[in-house]
Amino acid sequence: MQLAAELQRTHHRHQRQRQQQDTTPMCRQIQLTISDHTVAGDAVADDGEDLFIPPLNFAMVDNGIFRSGFPEPANFSFLQTLGLRSIIYLCPEPYPEANMEFLKSNGIKLFQFGIEGHKEPFVNIPEDTIREALEVVLDVRNHPVIIHCKRGKHRTGCLVGCYRKLQKWCLSSVFDEYQRFAAAKARVSDQRFVELFDISSMKHLPIPFSCLKRKR
Amino acid sequence: MQLAAELQRTHHRHQRQRQQQDTTPMCRQIQLTISDHTVAGDAVADDGEDLFIPPLNFAMVDNGIFRSGFPEPANFSFLQTLGLRSIIYLCPEPYPEANMEFLKSNGIKLFQFGIEGHKEPFVNIPEDTIREALEVVLDVRNHPVIIHCKRGKHRTGCLVGCYRKLQKWCLSSVFDEYQRFAAAKARVSDQRFVELFDISSMKHLPIPFSCLKRKR
Repeated sequence: MQLAAELQRTHHRHQRQRQQQDTTPMCRQIQLTISDHTVAGDAVADDGEDLFIPPLNFAMVDNGIFRSGFPEPANFSFLQTLGLRSIIYLCPEPYPEANMEFLKSNGIKLFQFGIEGHKEPFVNIPEDTIREALEVVLDVRNHPVIIHCKRGKHRTGCLVGCYRKLQKWCLSSVFDEYQRFAAAKARVSDQRFVELFDISSMKHLPIPFSCLKRKR
Repeated sequence: MQLAAELQRTHHRHQRQRQQQDTTPMCRQIQLTISDHTVAGDAVADDGEDLFIPPLNFAMVDNGIFRSGFPEPANFSFLQTLGLRSIIYLCPEPYPEANMEFLKSNGIKLFQFGIEGHKEPFVNIPEDTIREALEVVLDVRNHPVIIHCKRGKHRTGCLVGCYRKLQKWCLSSVFDEYQRFAAAKARVSDQRFVELFDISSMKHLPIPFSCLKRKR
């Protein structure tokens, strides 16, 4: 809590510094330029440099594959550094206009798989949809790709879990990773889905990633 | 708990299956061969294929950079798939013989930085040591590299946290990642160390990784 309070104080100090800077025309111009690139809302380091804000629950899954929660405009400048070719979006709700604009101006392709975000015990992850999404993940022509749902826990966790099964991870490690992201919200039903997910029909697909490939 | 019990049952079933297989001379020979390559202890999938067991708290940090807890012999076959060039080991205790053998037979270089694993409030992470370790992380000639301590939470979390600062991640995201691995064992003192860690002297070093580089 002490740390959180301090962070907030630092944030307010930065806000004040930015407001003070804004009184000179030069800085106002810089801010406008930044705003044009939709990086408004970025954090600022002590030396005045812009910091990146990765989306909630952001992580690297494998070479060219990332995962996260729903990206906000504040995350766009960070996402730009990944040089994304595509986004796999796992919710049925339409993609927000600001996010569509970001995709358009960065030439990023959107793959939407509308999986409902049920709560236990009414969980019903559609196996066919996960299978289709997995095929998009496995296709290196779509890389770098980021997988996301709302919070990057359940739907994203299920898809990444199935990907780990294809990589022949033992189930306890798959669940350990799932739980690291889902934390207190971990669902046995999601883990059961991953456990029962049948990969036998997908074994012909090439899995050209680091975790199954020697680099030397 | 239900899932844990089921996992244990599955594990016991696999053990039974392997024991049954061991009664034929053919299978005994295979087991010996596997044992020669120190992959004994691997899990086995339902279709009889060997599964990989990543080390505790294993994750990808960036292109060519991984993190984990202490690797056991059961993890060696998984680690082989990463094609590691080096290991950064953050504890003062000598590296176990089995692990040294694994390094030797796979041509992996060991960088050991002996940081004591204190408990709060007696935490004293040596800044110079982290700085030296960070230079090894940043040197692509050492990639692919895995960073590990004992549980992959505190010492590893501090080093990765400082790496994220070099990548210009905002502090709240750095801490979010730290906490994902440390979970209930998260230490404010570790996060304070990362917050205060001065990267200004390291800014001349090239950071040639995905998160700061366009791929197109």
